[in-house]
Amino acid sequence: MNFTTPERQFTQVDAYPTRLHDGERLSERLDPVLWSEWHEDAPITRAEADHYRDKGYLVRKDVFSPEELKLLVETSAHLREDPSGIARDDLISEPESDAVRTVFRLDAHSPLFDRLARDSRVAGVAEFLLGDQVYLHQSRLNYKPGFTGKEFYWHSDFETWHAEDGMPRMRAVSASILLTDNSALNGPLMLVPGSHKTFIACQGETPENNHETSLKAQKIGVPQPETISRMASELGLDAATGPAGTIVFFECNTLHGSNGNITPDPRSNAFFVYNAMSNLVGEPYAADRKRPDFLANQGRPVPDPIAPVTGEIRKG
Amino acid sequence: MNFTTPERQFTQVDAYPTRLHDGERLSERLDPVLWSEWHEDAPITRAEADHYRDKGYLVRKDVFSPEELKLLVETSAHLREDPSGIARDDLISEPESDAVRTVFRLDAHSPLFDRLARDSRVAGVAEFLLGDQVYLHQSRLNYKPGFTGKEFYWHSDFETWHAEDGMPRMRAVSASILLTDNSALNGPLMLVPGSHKTFIACQGETPENNHETSLKAQKIGVPQPETISRMASELGLDAATGPAGTIVFFECNTLHGSNGNITPDPRSNAFFVYNAMSNLVGEPYAADRKRPDFLANQGRPVPDPIAPVTGEIRKG
Repeated sequence: MNFTTPERQFTQVDAYPTRLHDGERLSERLDPVLWSEWHEDAPITRAEADHYRDKGYLVRKDVFSPEELKLLVETSAHLREDPSGIARDDLISEPESDAVRTVFRLDAHSPLFDRLARDSRVAGVAEFLLGDQVYLHQSRLNYKPGFTGKEFYWHSDFETWHAEDGMPRMRAVSASILLTDNSALNGPLMLVPGSHKTFIACQGETPENNHETSLKAQKIGVPQPETISRMASELGLDAATGPAGTIVFFECNTLHGSNGNITPDPRSNAFFVYNAMSNLVGEPYAADRKRPDFLANQGRPVPDPIAPVTGEIRKG
Repeated sequence: MNFTTPERQFTQVDAYPTRLHDGERLSERLDPVLWSEWHEDAPITRAEADHYRDKGYLVRKDVFSPEELKLLVETSAHLREDPSGIARDDLISEPESDAVRTVFRLDAHSPLFDRLARDSRVAGVAEFLLGDQVYLHQSRLNYKPGFTGKEFYWHSDFETWHAEDGMPRMRAVSASILLTDNSALNGPLMLVPGSHKTFIACQGETPENNHETSLKAQKIGVPQPETISRMASELGLDAATGPAGTIVFFECNTLHGSNGNITPDPRSNAFFVYNAMSNLVGEPYAADRKRPDFLANQGRPVPDPIAPVTGEIRKG
């Protein structure tokens, strides 16, 4: 696709004030959800595009070949079992153990996952959804072990990316590529369909170095339980389940969370956040300092846009 | 049904030694599962009886009328919201708050739930499964709130009842009557089908007053993760989901647990443990002192057998 990326804009005005002193505030989303018109050559069906626009997420199964999937799973296991080559800042452990929970800058630590991040089945879809060239705002490998996998409370990613990373507008999408089978019982990603249409400005100032604790258990930038209750009761609740290889695209403002997991079955996924080149991050809107690069890619001087790659993912 | 309850037996010999010094040990179950022959007048179908025998549990839906269910739900809400009349020993709160998690001796605190415990659709089925007159070993109302409901790790109830309550043999069954809809996402009871056929003798001596902490998070009397992994991988994993009013019968030695729950939907159930009159508890097999009466009903001098009651459950 060809895009004329407009000048960076919006950064002068804070379109979504949050981390408020005086309480939570709900407002209507100001941005489009689906930034392209659907057309015959689009990388997803019209029904899929409509679902993403209306619900704020899209689950795609059977996207990769068995050989591709095997390679991705093996490579992810290797990264987790031998994280010795990975910088300490790029690793997050479980709250109550040293088990690796997250490897950040996944594309930098693995040529294979770098290739996956550029794959047209992932980045090409992100380009279409965002109607722009895209770059990786964040990339990581998540690993939620069996038996002791902890819950992650309801939140909108955009609220944090806006407040703490300076992402101006809602023009980003996450792609989660499941590397294990994910059932309703082993802590799947749960989403509130349609919640992406409302911005929940959260109460509470951002503490210094908030990300050092928020990555383990988020306390700031989360909606009130009453708000989640009301939205879930109006809009329902869905779980993005599927076999390994399933891709879950979810819009940056869709409310999501996951339960803990006492089953023996671990949950693992590769997670890529695509942001539009027209939506580059600037100064945080509601934090004193920017978060580190592994959380919010700044680029030098700006990040490189991705040129989506077609064809089979192979070892090499 | 008419039963000739045999003399109390077995108590001289410990048929299921547990809380071992030198490690965990698996052995075959020594007792029948289904203690009655199925017959035309049985309170469950032949397929249900077979399922219970083979899997160790049975889920029955649409048992109560809407009016009965409404009455049960309202009464449970009242007990929870106003627990002031309930003895402190009979109340358990969430680990990190004062919210009521459990009301013990439910039958003593509510005439309506006492009636439920005697209902032929519950106690009558228990009689059939155990092939004997039954009494209430334990009865309680469980309440797992939305958002913060904690997980409960895998365990066999019998292991604890044997070790800490002196229950001689596997001739007891629990009935959980759901008082809220229970989906796979809000922390349902999960079971390992067929696990009731194996006794897992657990490692570790019983600490004094173990029940004071084990009711919030059980540490002693739980199988090793590797054992649960192996059994779940061989036998699978099931979740007892259903609308409010569903009854889940599960055999005393069936491995079960539940995940935490960040969804807004609470989970609540009435829980009755029926033990066979021929299986009265004696001295604990692996603890210094008996647990209190609210956990293990001793009776005066023995508990009264239940005479199952037919007909509609009504207010009054």
